Amino acid sequence: MTGQAGAARPAPGAAGPAGQPGGVPFTDFRADPSRYRHWRLECDGPVATLTMDVDEAGGLVPGYELKLNSYDLGVDIELYDAVQRLRFEHPEVRAVVLTSGKEKVFCAGANIRMLAASPHPWKVNFCKFTNETRSGIEDAALASGQTWLAALNGTASGGGYELALACEHIMLVDDRSSAVSLPELPLLGVLPGTGGLTRVTDKRHVRRDLADYFATKAEGIGGRKAVAWRLVDEAVPRARWEETVARRAAELAGRSGRPSGAPGIELTPLDKTRTGEQIRYRHVTARLDRARGVAEITVGGPGEDAPADAAAIHDQGAAFWTLAMTRELDDLILDLRTNELELGTWVIRTAGDAGRVLGYDRLLLRHADDWLANEIIHYLKRTLKRLDVTSRSLIALAGPGSCFAGSLLELALAADRSFQLSGVFEGAGPDAAPPVVHAGEMNLGPLPMGNGLTRLQTRFYGDQAGLAAAEKRAGEPLLAADAEQLGLVTFAPDDIDWDEEVRIAIEERASFSPDALTGMEANCRFAGPETLETKIFGRLTAWQNWIFCRPSASGPDGALRRYGTGQRADFDRKRV
Amino acid sequence: MTGQAGAARPAPGAAGPAGQPGGVPFTDFRADPSRYRHWRLECDGPVATLTMDVDEAGGLVPGYELKLNSYDLGVDIELYDAVQRLRFEHPEVRAVVLTSGKEKVFCAGANIRMLAASPHPWKVNFCKFTNETRSGIEDAALASGQTWLAALNGTASGGGYELALACEHIMLVDDRSSAVSLPELPLLGVLPGTGGLTRVTDKRHVRRDLADYFATKAEGIGGRKAVAWRLVDEAVPRARWEETVARRAAELAGRSGRPSGAPGIELTPLDKTRTGEQIRYRHVTARLDRARGVAEITVGGPGEDAPADAAAIHDQGAAFWTLAMTRELDDLILDLRTNELELGTWVIRTAGDAGRVLGYDRLLLRHADDWLANEIIHYLKRTLKRLDVTSRSLIALAGPGSCFAGSLLELALAADRSFQLSGVFEGAGPDAAPPVVHAGEMNLGPLPMGNGLTRLQTRFYGDQAGLAAAEKRAGEPLLAADAEQLGLVTFAPDDIDWDEEVRIAIEERASFSPDALTGMEANCRFAGPETLETKIFGRLTAWQNWIFCRPSASGPDGALRRYGTGQRADFDRKRV
Repeated sequence: MTGQAGAARPAPGAAGPAGQPGGVPFTDFRADPSRYRHWRLECDGPVATLTMDVDEAGGLVPGYELKLNSYDLGVDIELYDAVQRLRFEHPEVRAVVLTSGKEKVFCAGANIRMLAASPHPWKVNFCKFTNETRSGIEDAALASGQTWLAALNGTASGGGYELALACEHIMLVDDRSSAVSLPELPLLGVLPGTGGLTRVTDKRHVRRDLADYFATKAEGIGGRKAVAWRLVDEAVPRARWEETVARRAAELAGRSGRPSGAPGIELTPLDKTRTGEQIRYRHVTARLDRARGVAEITVGGPGEDAPADAAAIHDQGAAFWTLAMTRELDDLILDLRTNELELGTWVIRTAGDAGRVLGYDRLLLRHADDWLANEIIHYLKRTLKRLDVTSRSLIALAGPGSCFAGSLLELALAADRSFQLSGVFEGAGPDAAPPVVHAGEMNLGPLPMGNGLTRLQTRFYGDQAGLAAAEKRAGEPLLAADAEQLGLVTFAPDDIDWDEEVRIAIEERASFSPDALTGMEANCRFAGPETLETKIFGRLTAWQNWIFCRPSASGPDGALRRYGTGQRADFDRKRV
Repeated sequence: MTGQAGAARPAPGAAGPAGQPGGVPFTDFRADPSRYRHWRLECDGPVATLTMDVDEAGGLVPGYELKLNSYDLGVDIELYDAVQRLRFEHPEVRAVVLTSGKEKVFCAGANIRMLAASPHPWKVNFCKFTNETRSGIEDAALASGQTWLAALNGTASGGGYELALACEHIMLVDDRSSAVSLPELPLLGVLPGTGGLTRVTDKRHVRRDLADYFATKAEGIGGRKAVAWRLVDEAVPRARWEETVARRAAELAGRSGRPSGAPGIELTPLDKTRTGEQIRYRHVTARLDRARGVAEITVGGPGEDAPADAAAIHDQGAAFWTLAMTRELDDLILDLRTNELELGTWVIRTAGDAGRVLGYDRLLLRHADDWLANEIIHYLKRTLKRLDVTSRSLIALAGPGSCFAGSLLELALAADRSFQLSGVFEGAGPDAAPPVVHAGEMNLGPLPMGNGLTRLQTRFYGDQAGLAAAEKRAGEPLLAADAEQLGLVTFAPDDIDWDEEVRIAIEERASFSPDALTGMEANCRFAGPETLETKIFGRLTAWQNWIFCRPSASGPDGALRRYGTGQRADFDRKRV
């Protein structure tokens, strides 16, 4: 597979998994600004302008036109690429103006014909990815001082307004026709599912009854009322539009602590090989076992010791192990989630030297005030969050040669279950060392989950003594018996039981209802407090998924299918 | 309609609304200990024992047998009645031992054949009511010093263990066969949806990976391991069972601050008349407008001034206005939710004297340390929470003669939208007064929502200035312009616009997708923090509803339908 995003063409209507050898291509999440079809990125000192100008004919799949800056997954893949490149390639950018290249329309949201034609898993995956990208836009402001400003030069409806909601400041042109709206409920019989309902009340603090009214008013709200209701921050007459946008962007940029004059690093193309049987990058590989419904993922530790100083991180750039590994893992998660629906269990191994992993962690944390080190840590954080909301069973295996330490221990802590071999395998030779797991500084704060807690804090939620005991042993290599007793791994079978226990766990998983597993995991993984982010991925998404699979939305007479036909949807009037 | 619970026989398999005049009976939520078929309630001083002993032949609907103490809605209606009577009729009870009258089985959970045969709305309604009852059991301990102890004298599986999880202390007999389990996922392809997953991690602090393992192990876990994993608090050998249960109950009772020697009040039978067109109680009425899909609810204020002291509350007992009104409202919510699925909008009015409502509120709050006053306030709190999680659009109308004040103002604050008439109607006569709304002490703390905030705090979530401004005016009657400006009501049309605006709001609501409205309301109503309770009704329930309507659970080859047939379920292997 050689094509990058914009070129890959899956079939969202296809019921089976993509990826038959020699057959249907896979959705590719890799992109590059030189090949963008839908966006223009212009950087001018501390202010970048990202202009949405969707190519109507550039849909990822045949069958719909991307009119009025509506988007599909392909448009969002490019947006995600821009978000990432702004952070790594443009450290000088402190404010990002998000605007549209169309007259009188900012963005019409997700393309309806695409949604209507898509099977349930495609819709859900699409919403999850777009949600993650919007959370990433918020993370840029919070974690990185790169603040996004939505300059709505025309109407922003549905997903278009939800995209604006991910920005920290929303400006709407005040021309008596431009408005913001969430028309999903009245027009399509679904929710504004890309965080819209949650951000309106929980981020922008729109009063709940006004939010209710707004979300039922298809034509939306503009001008002073939109400001009074907090839907936007300001409404600006067209005559003063460009000047005011530029002034606001300069003000936001002025509040940032990002460095001046620092050169960015290039996010070079990923070295990826993909067949129907495996996906291989430099540090990460996945073997696709279709017979068992399993992806066997191995994450490799660093091939050499961490360099001595921050300058070396910059010198190595995209080749720096933590960044390279994270980019590969990120791409793998997206690839498997979208292209391999029937691989319901991901078995995660690590291979390498734990000391080296901890060395890279220490280097990054010692230089956390270096912009690039900071970016790498936050990117790893976001990628691990992507794993947390992935609807696959995650089983971590700490066998011989593994290096579940520090940042890589997070993979085991993110897993639904983990196994650590107690001792060595019979016949392993006199030099064989029993596997250890190893908590480090990276496990104690820098990589929080969406709920705001570390994975250790979530694991020991409500058990302060257990948390303290585990945290106290950070820095120590732990044999299986210790790790199990401390609660860092789930099970610690010895060589006699290992194969059988692991086999049963994997086979059993494959025998359960995939839907029930998804629901169970979405609950068990998020003990404790909820945040804007977990509410979007938990509460809002779950309701949307329910609505998506109900006849009133997706049935032949449902609102999604009937949209644009001139026929009204036929609703089951029963309230559930 | 004269029958009370145990007698009413709806058809869960019926697709249309119950309640054709002269036809299908309605599900009745009224019960009375003298008619219990499934429970025995014995009070012995400070300790009550509630014994579950389900009558196999006593299903609410024909078609299934309630074996092994499995339950259906009828069993749970009696349980709810017992919870209520314990609080009002038995102030002397400080600990409640919940146990089973069967040999070797505590409770097998919700009856599977009943679930498999039930249409989607019935399943969802059933789960909601059982969840509310379990939250009520927790509320008894927290708010009232009446602590429940689960004495599992045999296996507690699924909903049986979830019932135990609602208790503050769980004892399991240690006999090498009794276990607790959540077999829903492995056996039925659904979630433990009565709070099980949430309470295991968030209340009992079972580690997430152990919770995952536990929820996939159909045979469950007993003995010391169940204690070590925090699934139960103690495992007690059968030889010491009764003595230990009695000792624990006495210890729990000893920690309670409930009064000794205070006589309870009798929850006398509700005075209710129900036809296909209306439901009428003493203070509350509902007109059922099937053509428009609307229930027009009117809650009447007190017919006379509040009495002078706490003694009078006891004297009046179930006739005391706040208690009588709350019981009627509670029953009405349950009746409409279960029996009138197509009445998607509830229009809520009040009628009476605002000053009197505030007088009753003041009396209760002045005597909040009186056990009965305390119970009444908390019952009103629970009933309003029931309204919050009701999947109907709620529209409050403050027109002439209304009394949205204090406790009754909560109805408007719970509504998705509210309208207050600005001024009087033309031709209303020289004495007509324009309607006012009126915040009071009851709106400032005693009646929190499930998220732990008052409805005012939720309304002004993130807007401290708005909250302070509204709270500052507590005690003042507010005309429509003031109430709208303060944000206490949504809209304040005058007599020229009133009819049209209200009509449009109601008609428009009826034109939208009922599912999408349910999802939107479930999100907009719960701005801000989440709690165990909101996680159960939001995150867990939404995932369960999604799973319930997917083919892998409820399709002809799904796990729920195939359970007990000897055939394995046929799952769609795609992960969503």
